[in-house]
Amino acid sequence: MSDTNLTNGNGKLETSDDQNGVIQPLLSDYYQITMAYAYWKSRKHAERAVFDLYFRKNPFQGEFTIFAGLEECLKFIHNFSYSEKDVEYLRKLLPVHTESEFFNYLSHLNTNEVEVYAIDEGMVVFPKVPLLRLEGPLAVVQLLETTLLTLVNYASLVATNAARFRLAVGPKKGLLEFGLRRAQGPDGGLSASRYCYMGGFDATSNLLAGKLFGIPVKGTHAHAYVSSFNGLEDVRDKVCFDWLADLLSGLVDWLVAGLVELADCETSKVELAAFISYGLAFPDDFLCLIDTYSVIKSGLPNFCAVSLALIEAGYVPLGVRLDSGDLAYLSVIVRQSFMKIADEYNRPAFEKLTIVASNDINEETVHSLNHQGHCIDSFGIGTHLVTCQKQPALGCVYKLAEVNGKPRIKLSEDVEKVTMPGKKLAYRLYGVDGHALVDLMAQPNEEPILEGGKILCRHPFQESKRAHVTPKRVEPLYKCYYKDGKINQRLPTLNEIRQRAQESLSHIRMDHKRALNPTPYKVSVSGPLYNFMHDLWLENAPIGQLY
Amino acid sequence: MSDTNLTNGNGKLETSDDQNGVIQPLLSDYYQITMAYAYWKSRKHAERAVFDLYFRKNPFQGEFTIFAGLEECLKFIHNFSYSEKDVEYLRKLLPVHTESEFFNYLSHLNTNEVEVYAIDEGMVVFPKVPLLRLEGPLAVVQLLETTLLTLVNYASLVATNAARFRLAVGPKKGLLEFGLRRAQGPDGGLSASRYCYMGGFDATSNLLAGKLFGIPVKGTHAHAYVSSFNGLEDVRDKVCFDWLADLLSGLVDWLVAGLVELADCETSKVELAAFISYGLAFPDDFLCLIDTYSVIKSGLPNFCAVSLALIEAGYVPLGVRLDSGDLAYLSVIVRQSFMKIADEYNRPAFEKLTIVASNDINEETVHSLNHQGHCIDSFGIGTHLVTCQKQPALGCVYKLAEVNGKPRIKLSEDVEKVTMPGKKLAYRLYGVDGHALVDLMAQPNEEPILEGGKILCRHPFQESKRAHVTPKRVEPLYKCYYKDGKINQRLPTLNEIRQRAQESLSHIRMDHKRALNPTPYKVSVSGPLYNFMHDLWLENAPIGQLY
Repeated sequence: MSDTNLTNGNGKLETSDDQNGVIQPLLSDYYQITMAYAYWKSRKHAERAVFDLYFRKNPFQGEFTIFAGLEECLKFIHNFSYSEKDVEYLRKLLPVHTESEFFNYLSHLNTNEVEVYAIDEGMVVFPKVPLLRLEGPLAVVQLLETTLLTLVNYASLVATNAARFRLAVGPKKGLLEFGLRRAQGPDGGLSASRYCYMGGFDATSNLLAGKLFGIPVKGTHAHAYVSSFNGLEDVRDKVCFDWLADLLSGLVDWLVAGLVELADCETSKVELAAFISYGLAFPDDFLCLIDTYSVIKSGLPNFCAVSLALIEAGYVPLGVRLDSGDLAYLSVIVRQSFMKIADEYNRPAFEKLTIVASNDINEETVHSLNHQGHCIDSFGIGTHLVTCQKQPALGCVYKLAEVNGKPRIKLSEDVEKVTMPGKKLAYRLYGVDGHALVDLMAQPNEEPILEGGKILCRHPFQESKRAHVTPKRVEPLYKCYYKDGKINQRLPTLNEIRQRAQESLSHIRMDHKRALNPTPYKVSVSGPLYNFMHDLWLENAPIGQLY
Repeated sequence: MSDTNLTNGNGKLETSDDQNGVIQPLLSDYYQITMAYAYWKSRKHAERAVFDLYFRKNPFQGEFTIFAGLEECLKFIHNFSYSEKDVEYLRKLLPVHTESEFFNYLSHLNTNEVEVYAIDEGMVVFPKVPLLRLEGPLAVVQLLETTLLTLVNYASLVATNAARFRLAVGPKKGLLEFGLRRAQGPDGGLSASRYCYMGGFDATSNLLAGKLFGIPVKGTHAHAYVSSFNGLEDVRDKVCFDWLADLLSGLVDWLVAGLVELADCETSKVELAAFISYGLAFPDDFLCLIDTYSVIKSGLPNFCAVSLALIEAGYVPLGVRLDSGDLAYLSVIVRQSFMKIADEYNRPAFEKLTIVASNDINEETVHSLNHQGHCIDSFGIGTHLVTCQKQPALGCVYKLAEVNGKPRIKLSEDVEKVTMPGKKLAYRLYGVDGHALVDLMAQPNEEPILEGGKILCRHPFQESKRAHVTPKRVEPLYKCYYKDGKINQRLPTLNEIRQRAQESLSHIRMDHKRALNPTPYKVSVSGPLYNFMHDLWLENAPIGQLY
């Protein structure tokens, strides 16, 4: 991905450990507490339970998802304990009949007996394959439910959305996240910046995300900057920048004379004053929003005039931003003008100027721009990125798979909603060309899944759908991330996860990733898991209902 | 609104002052800092600027919006100052040419010279009428932009969505917000709970929102609770609750015999065990999810059996939740069964049992349920409420209206995007029946708008659209909320704002509020403001472009 040429800072990359916001255990649903109490009351609270966290359907009519939010989940689990004030609040909240001893139990609760098995953050993931498996005392793992769902759902959704934009624009274009003002409040905006970067964006406009997560921060000015000026009388630093004062009067004429397309332009003196002042402030980071009046008749010539002056003075201007109008057409005209100036006036810096486009861009807009042809270098994306307008929620669920070693199945008339019972391992099987062939779930006590072996992969629900696969490479998907009260893997940096996402995507065939009617990627179960699941299903399903 | 009968806590109401999360000034876009520097560099930073924060279009194809987020805006403005670490971060981020003195300026920045005029939080508001007007030093009010937009956008959007659900279900039904797991991360979920309550919901499932904002917290159990049981052997508290142990064996038969509809039912013993255990834990707050197996063949008889036992023991059960299937049909069957038991077994408590429905309910589902007829008392709403699926962003903007007493207008080829120049006052004019007739913007130096006077109201852009209005009551919409570094109005509690929202909505005609094709509410300008605006428009618009 390109290091886009927007006005860039020197924000050095720090690890995301800088974020010290601890998520409170009360950030959860009331029913978890009522269930915990009922478990405790039935003396079931310490039974060893296994829960799977997974989603049933990829978002955005796509066929892949980027898994994000793991680090936040682990930190939440690690810090999980109720403060005295929390317990006091719960004591007031729960019915008066609630036994006092339960609150004592709550105030000593911790996650020392919880184990977390998870897929690495940033990996491409698919429906039905658990992203996280939690094992631990029934009441404790139940209490973690909503917070884990909250932390994974939006993070994975927006990272996936970002990855789709990256696929749409290609690896060389710049992608800038602009979404803070349209997010679900302050922290929604922070999450958006963090996980959009993880999914493949290059930078954010959100300063706090820059500070907390070390994400590169970029941006230029807004229309208000231009309209705050009265005219050239507002340019006050003439003395310091004699070179600019000298050039000022003749510049526009000089420029106009050289450019056929720009004849008859009525450049705005207000805009020129604003650009000059901006150039005085950012002589080496000069990037202007050129559509306040008219891109072609005012913004472009004004920008070129000031840029030529900056080049005269030894600086290198950066480029322009378009925020309205026909972005394909305007970007082509702007690029042509830049190339003509570079050529006719021998100013090679003009060849390298960046064109940034914004204005309510969504994934379809990008595909349409690609189809029309355009000269945009970087895209600024806000609303559609952070709100995930096309599908604003990923429906992750948290389902009980086992209690005290006994498998649990939740039946449903909708076959897609039947849960996979018991503890499961998961593998990604790769073919000789390096592409992933299939994800396979199996039981822990099965024969190991080996590279080069002939492996039966079955559709989880449709008996007749099965195939033999001989993988060149077998990747076990789970690691134990948490045990004995400790996070027991090194947590990668945000940049490492971002690279992993692109690496993982590179192993997925293009037809699974395309925007329109992608081929579904296959998720399978082993023969033994298939039989185990279907036996349990038949055992639990009532007989005698007409299907 | 009803106090819904979901398992309820005793959460005493506290003021929202308990929330001590201070929003950091870096939660803003980079371009605001670059603009601030460019203003400072041109010595324009202290010029007195006026900015309007408003939206251009009501959300959800509706014709009204609830204004929310003001308290958070005021607290943000009040606390606005850069820490040493913030300034240090910005120093690294901005280009090396940036003058050092600017960072000194930033580190001493405060909002003592900022004035904020705003509409009361919770009021019904309409497009184009500024919700907030900020006056102060150009650089300072510019730096506040993104954070204010972030705080108002989602808060107002989700409060409006909540108010629409309230209109759809009517004043007597219960509305419970369930959205935490589908929100944009932890704080997105907190904002959702707060502003859904403000917009007319009765309760949330989010414990932290309950603790921080004093919102009533409700909920029951999930499917996992039921499927964690093996069977009746799991019921362990028989000794403590002899009455239940005695009734246990014969209960289901007894019930089934009495209910024609429930003949042939194969009740799940697993579910029965779960319900008994839940009843033991919550004998006076007994509310069960009854669709784990089959509502009619298992959940309903199991619930009735345990409820009858609880009534025998002197307790009062609460009701059931339906989370799948045909909610209209099932709710009717469940209600009929309850009424029959109440009647035939002389158990009047059964007449008062609550039926709660959930399962991906959106506004259209509610209208469809109303149309079909149903017996639901309370709705649990999650995803569609908090993500605002139908329109996940409200497009608030922050536009420059005046600098140093000189009006500013931003032109656009889209007439809806032309800004209203200068400082404006706003009034709501009411008719004799108490309904709001029109919102009117006027200039501060005009003749006062008086009750009983004949007032010319003009369409802001269409010359021929104007009318004389004689209001029975004139409500000035702005108060000065912030001046001299102080919030100078008492901030109402969340409950007061929630009441204001309903009160304000009650003055809006039903045809403006209906879900389908509502009548647009009129927003007008005074004659003098109309002329002022159009003179400035002509003065600034380039001549000679073909329209």
